[in-house]
Amino acid sequence: MERLPGFRDFYPEPLPHTDVWSADARQYIFEQWRTVAKRYGFREYDGPPLEPLELFTTKSGEEIVGQMFNFVDKGDRHIALRPEMTPTLARMVAAHERQYKKPIKWYAIPQLFRYERPGKGRLREHFQLNADLIGETDPAADAELIALLIDTLRVFGLTAADFVIRLSSRNAWQDFFQQGGGDPKNEYEFFQIIDKLERNSPEETEKKLAAMGFSFAKVNEFIEAGKPSPELESILQNLAARGLAEFVKVDYRVIRGLAYYTGVVFEAFDRKGEFRAIAGGGRYNNLVKLISGGKVDLAALGFGMGDVVLLELLKARGLLPKFDAPMNVFVLIEDEKLRGISLKLVQSLRSVGFAVEYPLTPAKADKQFKRAQDLKVLHTVRAESDAYVRIRNLKTREEIVAGFGDVANHLG
Amino acid sequence: MERLPGFRDFYPEPLPHTDVWSADARQYIFEQWRTVAKRYGFREYDGPPLEPLELFTTKSGEEIVGQMFNFVDKGDRHIALRPEMTPTLARMVAAHERQYKKPIKWYAIPQLFRYERPGKGRLREHFQLNADLIGETDPAADAELIALLIDTLRVFGLTAADFVIRLSSRNAWQDFFQQGGGDPKNEYEFFQIIDKLERNSPEETEKKLAAMGFSFAKVNEFIEAGKPSPELESILQNLAARGLAEFVKVDYRVIRGLAYYTGVVFEAFDRKGEFRAIAGGGRYNNLVKLISGGKVDLAALGFGMGDVVLLELLKARGLLPKFDAPMNVFVLIEDEKLRGISLKLVQSLRSVGFAVEYPLTPAKADKQFKRAQDLKVLHTVRAESDAYVRIRNLKTREEIVAGFGDVANHLG
Repeated sequence: MERLPGFRDFYPEPLPHTDVWSADARQYIFEQWRTVAKRYGFREYDGPPLEPLELFTTKSGEEIVGQMFNFVDKGDRHIALRPEMTPTLARMVAAHERQYKKPIKWYAIPQLFRYERPGKGRLREHFQLNADLIGETDPAADAELIALLIDTLRVFGLTAADFVIRLSSRNAWQDFFQQGGGDPKNEYEFFQIIDKLERNSPEETEKKLAAMGFSFAKVNEFIEAGKPSPELESILQNLAARGLAEFVKVDYRVIRGLAYYTGVVFEAFDRKGEFRAIAGGGRYNNLVKLISGGKVDLAALGFGMGDVVLLELLKARGLLPKFDAPMNVFVLIEDEKLRGISLKLVQSLRSVGFAVEYPLTPAKADKQFKRAQDLKVLHTVRAESDAYVRIRNLKTREEIVAGFGDVANHLG
Repeated sequence: MERLPGFRDFYPEPLPHTDVWSADARQYIFEQWRTVAKRYGFREYDGPPLEPLELFTTKSGEEIVGQMFNFVDKGDRHIALRPEMTPTLARMVAAHERQYKKPIKWYAIPQLFRYERPGKGRLREHFQLNADLIGETDPAADAELIALLIDTLRVFGLTAADFVIRLSSRNAWQDFFQQGGGDPKNEYEFFQIIDKLERNSPEETEKKLAAMGFSFAKVNEFIEAGKPSPELESILQNLAARGLAEFVKVDYRVIRGLAYYTGVVFEAFDRKGEFRAIAGGGRYNNLVKLISGGKVDLAALGFGMGDVVLLELLKARGLLPKFDAPMNVFVLIEDEKLRGISLKLVQSLRSVGFAVEYPLTPAKADKQFKRAQDLKVLHTVRAESDAYVRIRNLKTREEIVAGFGDVANHLG
């Protein structure tokens, strides 16, 4: 029986096959994400992977339904597997925000689902670090969140030579649009044209812009100048004070397609341009109000970083560690009369924190030793009697005999 | 907008409301589960939360469909949200078992979904530690897995006064059934009667047993005697050698309803009998063969431990730690001219691993200090110039002045 297309099995390393994924690498990535989030004072939350369909259509319109796993449950509820975390976050914050000090700094590592056309490298699920900062309008909040994004990539060993944050602002484009005499009802469509600059042909873009009364040359001039707006200037200075200037540049070509962004937007890319965006985010000051039906109004911003592109990048840069079974000790049982006392030894070592393996059933001495070597343990331990054990360091080849209660002290 | 009935939101502590769950407690439980599994040499794996419906009906029959979240996707696939992990494990093992040494010792912490009738304490999802040992028929494997179960509960501070593993065996009941002249075609129904002993009335049980030619008195005698079968005797001796005898007792009333168990079965209960089973498992030597369509035949056993009953038990016994925001340092910014240098300080402390908070925007000195106290940081740090900082230990109230590059050394 096969797994569903677009879904992943995660196996322990060493991996048996190239079409499966590493559970160890996944856990490594999650741990690094958590480590950095905690340093920044972000707290973990999570919501259900299933939500009412309406939660997502309220935010993104009915179009999103075609891209989701959705169904009607046995109780006639319209349900969707979450394609993104922000609506759940907005729902949760709106429900209980009074009991948390502002700004709220939260993160989650949800698995997200999209019903995309399957194909090479196109998955229907991925894991995503979501970090959000809620209840602060000052650009200092944007800088804090972008600093978190930068450090979340640096913790894996990535440097300014590997990635850059392209920083932009809906506000800056809004000013450009208004000063150019744009009709307010065309504003969202204008943003869409900018969003597709790098994908569409110049001719098409020029035609579309002209239809709104804008010259492509002027748009390009604005982009090429890349003059930071006041809010971007404030963010750049804040990041420079932290010593993070080299990780960020203003790039007005970034505008992000989603309708709900309201201010600063940004995306993280590998410098060589080999991969899709590593992460993306921005301000969404109206979303909490929208989701809560007007009850709670809180400014917010956040970013999402998926596990798939990050993993590809880390692999390509040789930055993934080797994941062996983290085994410390192998207890040899060469004399079956000593199995009972050997089990006691196994138990006592595990109970003080050592990872211990031993032969479950009678096995030849050389086979046991081979297994100990395969597991890359530092020590083998062998009961000599019910009072003494022989400890061997497989690196130095030193052997010592120790009293039964004294073993752990010799295994440093 | 409300979340779906039977699903949970996980909030950071302190919790805002009694109907929400603690993300910190959840993470604490997962970390303890991982810690003990690693000591026992179990490796982590995971599969997709969505699987072909057929994977579950092959194992459990069509009846299970009524208890699942299942639907037809946009590609006409019959899909189910996983109600248990074992079929996925069997599928994954069957696909790649040749590349792993036997016995395979794997664990996972999946979220599982059941469409149960909603009600007080009845959830439609939970997380479950699944630990399985595959490729070994010897009862030594059963003992190893039960030892893992015991230590997974002990790591939380639970003792033999809090819980016990009730150990039983399908083989022992099979012998009883055959020696009593039972008709092989009634065997599964006989097991079902034993499984419901504690729920059904004695009259009903007596009648049903009599219809198969068995006397209720004889059944009770067998249970009361509780004489370990040879395989159970072997497991008990193994556990006794580890010093774990007090955590386990033979109890033939445990037989577990699921059709696929083939040998030893067990359940963990709180000694006071206040809660439902904490964990349960057993041997399922035929499942890998069934799932793989006969291609791979491997003996196996495993257990599952859910997060909900465990959490209730830990709360009732006062064994859950307090989960504060784990913040180490608060950087005070009392002079806005020093904000730039203060941000540099924040960055340098975070980059060596400290969890650091600071006022995002200008704030009064007393408000900042109050926030530092609320966050229970051990130290406040205040830039005095671009060369010196003042470090205050909030416990001892000691203050020292240190050079900028020397701060981390004083924060031990």
